[in-house]
Amino acid sequence: MTQVSPLAPPHFPELPEVPGARLVVVRAGYKDWGRADLTLAELAPGTCVAGVLTRSRCPSPEVDWCRSSLSGGKARALVVNAGNSNAFTGGKGRAAVSAIVEAACAALGCAEQEVFVASTGVIGVPLPVDRARAGLADAFARLAAGERAGWQDAAAAISTTDTFPKGSSRQLAIGGRTINLVGIIKGSGMIAPDMATMLGFIFTDAAVDARFLQSALEEANARTFRCITVDGDTSTSDTVLVFATGAAGNAPLDEASADAASFKAALADLCRELAQLVVRDGEGAQKFITVAVAGAEDDRAARVIALSIANSPLVKTAIAGEDANWGRIVMAVGKAGEAADRDQLAIRFGSTLVATEGHAVEGYDEGPVAAHLKGREIEIGVDLGIGPGRATVWTCDLTHGYISINADYRS
Amino acid sequence: MTQVSPLAPPHFPELPEVPGARLVVVRAGYKDWGRADLTLAELAPGTCVAGVLTRSRCPSPEVDWCRSSLSGGKARALVVNAGNSNAFTGGKGRAAVSAIVEAACAALGCAEQEVFVASTGVIGVPLPVDRARAGLADAFARLAAGERAGWQDAAAAISTTDTFPKGSSRQLAIGGRTINLVGIIKGSGMIAPDMATMLGFIFTDAAVDARFLQSALEEANARTFRCITVDGDTSTSDTVLVFATGAAGNAPLDEASADAASFKAALADLCRELAQLVVRDGEGAQKFITVAVAGAEDDRAARVIALSIANSPLVKTAIAGEDANWGRIVMAVGKAGEAADRDQLAIRFGSTLVATEGHAVEGYDEGPVAAHLKGREIEIGVDLGIGPGRATVWTCDLTHGYISINADYRS
Repeated sequence: MTQVSPLAPPHFPELPEVPGARLVVVRAGYKDWGRADLTLAELAPGTCVAGVLTRSRCPSPEVDWCRSSLSGGKARALVVNAGNSNAFTGGKGRAAVSAIVEAACAALGCAEQEVFVASTGVIGVPLPVDRARAGLADAFARLAAGERAGWQDAAAAISTTDTFPKGSSRQLAIGGRTINLVGIIKGSGMIAPDMATMLGFIFTDAAVDARFLQSALEEANARTFRCITVDGDTSTSDTVLVFATGAAGNAPLDEASADAASFKAALADLCRELAQLVVRDGEGAQKFITVAVAGAEDDRAARVIALSIANSPLVKTAIAGEDANWGRIVMAVGKAGEAADRDQLAIRFGSTLVATEGHAVEGYDEGPVAAHLKGREIEIGVDLGIGPGRATVWTCDLTHGYISINADYRS
Repeated sequence: MTQVSPLAPPHFPELPEVPGARLVVVRAGYKDWGRADLTLAELAPGTCVAGVLTRSRCPSPEVDWCRSSLSGGKARALVVNAGNSNAFTGGKGRAAVSAIVEAACAALGCAEQEVFVASTGVIGVPLPVDRARAGLADAFARLAAGERAGWQDAAAAISTTDTFPKGSSRQLAIGGRTINLVGIIKGSGMIAPDMATMLGFIFTDAAVDARFLQSALEEANARTFRCITVDGDTSTSDTVLVFATGAAGNAPLDEASADAASFKAALADLCRELAQLVVRDGEGAQKFITVAVAGAEDDRAARVIALSIANSPLVKTAIAGEDANWGRIVMAVGKAGEAADRDQLAIRFGSTLVATEGHAVEGYDEGPVAAHLKGREIEIGVDLGIGPGRATVWTCDLTHGYISINADYRS
């Protein structure tokens, strides 16, 4: 990993074990790097799974595989390859996924539909099947020998251009039992909604009905992973999967459970933190930006406007330059195409109102705004003043670092 | 002007006079710079006008004024202010436009609807009315004294961050008479379709029916100004106006004229060159990129996909890095949301096919592609392979120069 993002948390958190999920990492050698790049999670029989996947019309064969397998709702294994996304590799790419699925099925004696695969890295180069097979054999042998990877090791092994490993957890009590939710995630560039470009994996020992798990994840996704953007670019490989092993022994959760709402809230809260960690590792990011839009026609319009601001290169470079150029926010509101009344619009940086009713506030003092913009955590508030719609999205600034990383990615 | 874009033409072209249009430039002092920043064009009685304006929901009062005045179809004056866009300035901004219109009407004895105003520059600061009035009085005095500005002077006076003045012309014979079309344009950043962020003014001595002129401009706009993008950001001030003075004395052109098609073609051709000149002055641009999409479901889908590629920061930084990272083109096709079949997709750089039927071509040799990418003029070709839809758009690469210019615009 290169220089750690200045927006990274001070250290990787302490994360609890999730009974029913056993992880191991190995070096398959997908790239010429001296680190683990294949992660295997073996999941207890009966584990339920839910997932959300990229909306790209050119998805990787892994995404196709996961999408069709999710209908079964059950999982016994997750295999994550880093360094090669296997996307846009035609029949060879599909064959690589099949080979991984077959090898895992043979080792675990499970159905093909119970094996989930995700890959991340360069597009257009078929995943080398021999390395995947050898790596997976090594991983199962280590698991059998009692080796276990910690969450930090797994978070590092699924990374590519990330500058720090990302993970978090939540605990809650359900029916007198303590339930753990642990998530790890990777993502740094090619981050955009529909959904955020990333691989994310959440493990819980709760027993959860698969359909309920899917709807809880989709609800959380709409307010978290779909609300972050680094560069507006959507990956071919976006995948977030949640595995519920049931090892906690609670009565399976469903929509009717007394604890349904608190489980959903904990899952959404974890997703929000994971999503924000990805933005904090945005390529070249120096500032974490929260864009809060209120007063729009409805929540959908508010989200479109918030993303128009968050994806604007002119807004993002102004923040990078610590420049209170709120005219660019007016521009981004205007281009969003949603209902807006120029003469009702209010804009703030941090807690300072800079414009209201279509013009700069009387006696506007740029001092407190300039001070706010010098910090690492920037807030942009927009009130359209025409309706009840609200949305919050998160992004980072656009800096020379982004250009340097992406103009020279493959060399 | 700072360092001239490496993509600029070698020199400003020789442009003919357009009888019926008299231009003058003066220094109103909208910014503290030692150059002319107010341009006045006086147009002969009977001049017809057509225009296309920004689709921003937060347009400047100038845009509002032009939109409502275009319904009259007649023009006697154009006033262009540079250095201050007067956008998002509330009642003060509207008052500034009114003051300019009143002053021009008084000088020319024309109707308010016959005066067109455009302003470009920083957003959120009301245009100083006293400077506008004084500048305009100076301009009319100079005109009366016989002073005339050349096209290059006018192109320079309407500029802001542009690094070179932009103009071009076309001539055609209509009914035995030679007709001139001359256009000047400014634009460099905040360039996106709907429509390209710029001010452009075209003058012709042809006599043209106002409704025909409007439909000819809209047709041209769809294939030219709406097909360029620098950063995907849409200005609050986009304005392109065409003035037809009628001084050539031809029988007025309309849809039924024998020469209608050739006039439309000449206008569209001029618009295309002006639009491309803006891209060639894209902020920080080092390479001019043509994105040609074929085989899409229909032309609309092709344009959406072409713009998704042209607006992708990852594609644009790869080109800046002279990196044949065609996987990012797959990504941009996938995120566009239009119909695509990963396994039918073909991609070329210049004349070299790099991927076909969903995977890299056998024995792909990056040599000729690397050589193409070292040039200034880059071509990206995408064939979706599923339909007859075609579109071509133009953009530039995303470089450190863009960041430097925009992180420090106001200081």
